Amino acid sequence: MQFDSLDDIAAFCRDLPVGDARAADAAALRQQALTKPPGSLGRLEELALWLARWQRRESPRLDHVTITVFAGNHGIAARGVSAYPQAVTAQMVANFAGGGAAINQIANLAGADLCVVPIELDRPTRDFTVAPAMDVDEFLGAIDIGYRTVPPDSDLLAVGEMGIANTTTAATLCAALLGGSGEHWAGRGTGVDDAGLARKRETIETAVSFHRAILGNPLAVAAALGGRELAAIAGAILAARRHHIPVLLDGFVATAAILPLASLNAGIMDHCRAGHVSAESGHRALLRELGLKPLLDLDMRLGEASGAGIAILLLRAALSCHMGMATFSEAGVSGAGT
Amino acid sequence: MQFDSLDDIAAFCRDLPVGDARAADAAALRQQALTKPPGSLGRLEELALWLARWQRRESPRLDHVTITVFAGNHGIAARGVSAYPQAVTAQMVANFAGGGAAINQIANLAGADLCVVPIELDRPTRDFTVAPAMDVDEFLGAIDIGYRTVPPDSDLLAVGEMGIANTTTAATLCAALLGGSGEHWAGRGTGVDDAGLARKRETIETAVSFHRAILGNPLAVAAALGGRELAAIAGAILAARRHHIPVLLDGFVATAAILPLASLNAGIMDHCRAGHVSAESGHRALLRELGLKPLLDLDMRLGEASGAGIAILLLRAALSCHMGMATFSEAGVSGAGT
Repeated sequence: MQFDSLDDIAAFCRDLPVGDARAADAAALRQQALTKPPGSLGRLEELALWLARWQRRESPRLDHVTITVFAGNHGIAARGVSAYPQAVTAQMVANFAGGGAAINQIANLAGADLCVVPIELDRPTRDFTVAPAMDVDEFLGAIDIGYRTVPPDSDLLAVGEMGIANTTTAATLCAALLGGSGEHWAGRGTGVDDAGLARKRETIETAVSFHRAILGNPLAVAAALGGRELAAIAGAILAARRHHIPVLLDGFVATAAILPLASLNAGIMDHCRAGHVSAESGHRALLRELGLKPLLDLDMRLGEASGAGIAILLLRAALSCHMGMATFSEAGVSGAGT
Repeated sequence: MQFDSLDDIAAFCRDLPVGDARAADAAALRQQALTKPPGSLGRLEELALWLARWQRRESPRLDHVTITVFAGNHGIAARGVSAYPQAVTAQMVANFAGGGAAINQIANLAGADLCVVPIELDRPTRDFTVAPAMDVDEFLGAIDIGYRTVPPDSDLLAVGEMGIANTTTAATLCAALLGGSGEHWAGRGTGVDDAGLARKRETIETAVSFHRAILGNPLAVAAALGGRELAAIAGAILAARRHHIPVLLDGFVATAAILPLASLNAGIMDHCRAGHVSAESGHRALLRELGLKPLLDLDMRLGEASGAGIAILLLRAALSCHMGMATFSEAGVSGAGT
């Protein structure tokens, strides 16, 4: 396994690989010469520099883009916190395989390979209101699965998830690591009714109270109050950092998956961007806590990497301008103040 | 000419063509059957219905997408309201022709035809602080040019502009038709310095005061305080409405171009969406006044249809999900509460 213990992960997070400032500086010089007022492409300019920094290439590329969707099941689904039955997780994995889901269409449009990784769907995590969701070995196993899915030569990785009840898991991680009530972090997920939302809030608060002895240890929290697909996302983010691959995060659950790592070292987010802010109510608050500014705000709340997948299109726009535009001298265009 | 008088335009605006509610309703029924929680694709769902309504097709398409960039020059450029010399308008038109501008890269990425229409660049409008920018015939001529550029069989039209000093023109139209000071509406455009910004504010206020007798007539304002490329955008929007073509507006200038029409009948915006909100300070306020919610917010402020061009990618995402996803019954996925 890539990490044999929680301490191994913590050690990696203490001494994170860094990007290439020289590649980013060279890309910034090119930006300044392109036929546009300085800064006028806004966030697209910063995205081009970010790709250069993490790909460690003055001329970044998006030839090999991967979207990875991890799927897991959750013991707390039995508590009636979702509008859908747990069987839907596996049914949607089959839908991904058949090409019928939103992310299939988006991956095709974005020119990305779609990789779907179901993790022990027939063995949900334990109900974390009464026990740890995973023991340390189960957690490390899920981290490892995520780590190994990342092709080291990827130019970009977008991560997302599928898992009935997992917005409750995400909200519980937020409450455990950031404080705040169940009411603050619980949203309607796939569309739970008022009674379900009340059960969701209660589940979060019961769980945080039950595990109060470990709240100071973010990785222990990620095991005890997390889920397999969230751990796998964290593993994929760690692998991307090792291989200098920029990452687009999807919605609330995918962002909650990085929270335990960010609690150890906020620098883990340097190679990540938030693809979008979802309509799930906790996501905007979580992004604010993490200092992440989303690229898109389209009221989406589907998961399955759909928001991150659409954000790939923005990176393609950033890259095509950065690499394809003429410079002022090439085009014979006058600069400012001339 | 399509419109022989300002009254002809006003008459068209009084009795605007409408979309096809049955096509939109049929598209909405399809949305409800797709394998996702209802509403979970957020604004992408509304965009698919909007395409269906205006294309009058239950199954909308984006096979023939056109980006049109109108260019014009402005008498008020001589007042030092821009960071760039007026020659840059023609130089950038040449850059568009040569494929070196941002919009060339974006059009390629978005699968759109790019149509660039320079309008009498060697004959700037008159300085509207001392005279009408255009007389009625000049204005109608520019409207007509814009109208005739629109291919009647387009599936989508994105409109933008190029014209040194034209954020001053746009801000002046806003101040004239919506009220508010020069300070409220003037931004830094391509990056004007403090002294230039002060000249810009003064230009706006002088112009509105000079033309105070006509402020109650939106089309007279569009002629006297507008620009040729703004009039052409209005003409293109009118043609798109005639031919039932949905329109994506670009930034502050393109949005200001629809303002005189919207002042006559707010329904003119029904076949339009704001592609983005730009960093130009007046744009957010103008969108709010018009009740338009932008699709993107990326701190861009380039013009040349760049924001609208990127928004085409979102429409492609909306369409690909709408047309490509499996239904619950096709995929064997359980619905909510089952």
